[in-house]
Amino acid sequence: MTLLICTTCRAPGNDAPQETQQLAERDGARLLASACAASVPEGVAVEGVACLANCKRALSAAMVRRDGWTYVFGDLAPDSAADLLAGAALLANSEDGLMPWRGRPDVLKRGMVARIPPLSAKETR
Amino acid sequence: MTLLICTTCRAPGNDAPQETQQLAERDGARLLASACAASVPEGVAVEGVACLANCKRALSAAMVRRDGWTYVFGDLAPDSAADLLAGAALLANSEDGLMPWRGRPDVLKRGMVARIPPLSAKETR
Repeated sequence: MTLLICTTCRAPGNDAPQETQQLAERDGARLLASACAASVPEGVAVEGVACLANCKRALSAAMVRRDGWTYVFGDLAPDSAADLLAGAALLANSEDGLMPWRGRPDVLKRGMVARIPPLSAKETR
Repeated sequence: MTLLICTTCRAPGNDAPQETQQLAERDGARLLASACAASVPEGVAVEGVACLANCKRALSAAMVRRDGWTYVFGDLAPDSAADLLAGAALLANSEDGLMPWRGRPDVLKRGMVARIPPLSAKETR
């Protein structure tokens, strides 16, 4: 599965004017760098994306598993990389394609924004 | 592409106790019924899902295009079926897999919750 971290997000309270803040300095970009530098679990790929359009609840990330559910999380913190990777491993190893609630890091419970089911096999469009 | 409408959503202001309100009577279920009864555009399939976990911004819907972006919308109204179907047609016919901003119904601009990119071809997990 793929963990997508929004690189354009700025953390609430980061009031630096947007036009003077390089993309690489954004809180979301730092969160991505932090996740990539961590020990990424087996079966998890980490990618950056600009942007997830979940700006009202930045910082933001999504998890996509081809044969499972897709998740969107918000209200993340600049230091949420380890929690994101733990949740990604839960989803990667889930038998039913859902991320279990039990064992899920708290930030991924409070920050649940949406989940989207996999398309059924009959759906080819 | 597939338009997924959350059938468990209750509209803000619907204060009927959850346990006395049958699922089929939920505002989300009515929105789904309304969309199914409307003229569904070519290339669009409509399905119900319980639930999208976007409860903070109910009513809620998602749009999934296999080779394009996935969208989550919230703050929908019980009468948003026509706007949802118009947006779904825009996404179904988009050349780059993104829903164009221009021409998008206002409720799908204000109610934008998140968008998720398609997995790259190299990503098979």
